Amino acid sequence: MPYVNIKITNEGATAEQKKRLIEGVTKMLQDILGKNPQTTCVVIEEVPTDNWGLGGETITERRKREKK
Amino acid sequence: MPYVNIKITNEGATAEQKKRLIEGVTKMLQDILGKNPQTTCVVIEEVPTDNWGLGGETITERRKREKK
Amino acid sequence: MPYVNIKITNEGATAEQKKRLIEGVTKMLQDILGKNPQTTCVVIEEVPTDNWGLGGETITERRKREKK
Amino acid sequence: MPYVNIKITNEGATAEQKKRLIEGVTKMLQDILGKNPQTTCVVIEEVPTDNWGLGGETITERRKREKK
Amino acid sequence: MPYVNIKITNEGATAEQKKRLIEGVTKMLQDILGKNPQTTCVVIEEVPTDNWGLGGETITERRKREKK
Amino acid sequence: MPYVNIKITNEGATAEQKKRLIEGVTKMLQDILGKNPQTTCVVIEEVPTDNWGLGGETITERRKREKK
Repeated sequence: MPYVNIKITNEGATAEQKKRLIEGVTKMLQDILGKNPQTTCVVIEEVPTDNWGLGGETITERRKREKK
Repeated sequence: MPYVNIKITNEGATAEQKKRLIEGVTKMLQDILGKNPQTTCVVIEEVPTDNWGLGGETITERRKREKK
Repeated sequence: MPYVNIKITNEGATAEQKKRLIEGVTKMLQDILGKNPQTTCVVIEEVPTDNWGLGGETITERRKREKK
Repeated sequence: MPYVNIKITNEGATAEQKKRLIEGVTKMLQDILGKNPQTTCVVIEEVPTDNWGLGGETITERRKREKK
Repeated sequence: MPYVNIKITNEGATAEQKKRLIEGVTKMLQDILGKNPQTTCVVIEEVPTDNWGLGGETITERRKREKK
Repeated sequence: MPYVNIKITNEGATAEQKKRLIEGVTKMLQDILGKNPQTTCVVIEEVPTDNWGLGGETITERRKREKK
């Protein structure tokens, strides 16, 4: 029954990585809190780097700075 | 004033279905809780099946299993 | 599998009203989109009126104005 | 450390506007609440007008009405 | 930079369990997606059982049924 | 019509501060994106420090470390 929402930037997470994330988080909720995995819901949202801000700048800007 | 967020997998909901959902939920909040429909906000998000996990597997995997 | 999040101000919704809302929204997702009700998840969040803004003012202020 | 989620309809917000929004909201949380901007996270989500309801109708319908 | 929101019913998760959940999810995002743990944000929300619906009924009702 | 959700830790934000935040964010969406303030909705959620993780530790732990 838990609901987990994971937001990340859309920088190329693969279907395989998302699959492992869903498996892992679902198992963790079962192991730590005893939650029934059958009704655990995990939703991954991938956000464009222009739309994500950290430290007052977009991730697009941050990535540019990092490359320099 | 209520805010409703509906997340579904992106498996082909039509504009007409989304319209009915918005009308229906807005009316329900008015009927049950007396909320003013003019400021009720409903946001539908459609999530790729690779990004939605239920029971520890992605909906992509689940749909494949169901087809077998 | 749909996930619905309903945010309202905490102005006295009863357990009975919340129950009807959960039943109604779950049924609507089944009727309109054919979603399996067994895994439909509805989460209602009740927010203090000081924490909800509409039209640039809090609902606390709005309620005061309405009473005048 | 604050987390801000801004949902708007996808009606052409530019990268520059989103940048200004992220800067502005981050600064506001620092000015008003003293929050460290380095860990303030702002996520902007742009929602299709078919998927956003206000007053029981979609923004798509509302825009059509407004044009008439 | 990832943001994770975990919603569970408020049925007695301890501070220790929440701590383990935060550690575990942060590490998983580092291991699977290479995300910097320093800016990973995890927010746990505990929801009253009257406010959580699954299968069209509240968790309050479900718990009563399970006890019989 | 925009919807803004601001999550902060519950460390004593006053009604006055929340009011200023709601006014400021609503105005910023009008100034930068031309959004009608009348239907802009801002919801502030205050989260216990045990329930907020940053850098893999809870804010409760972080505050203790900072005091030392």
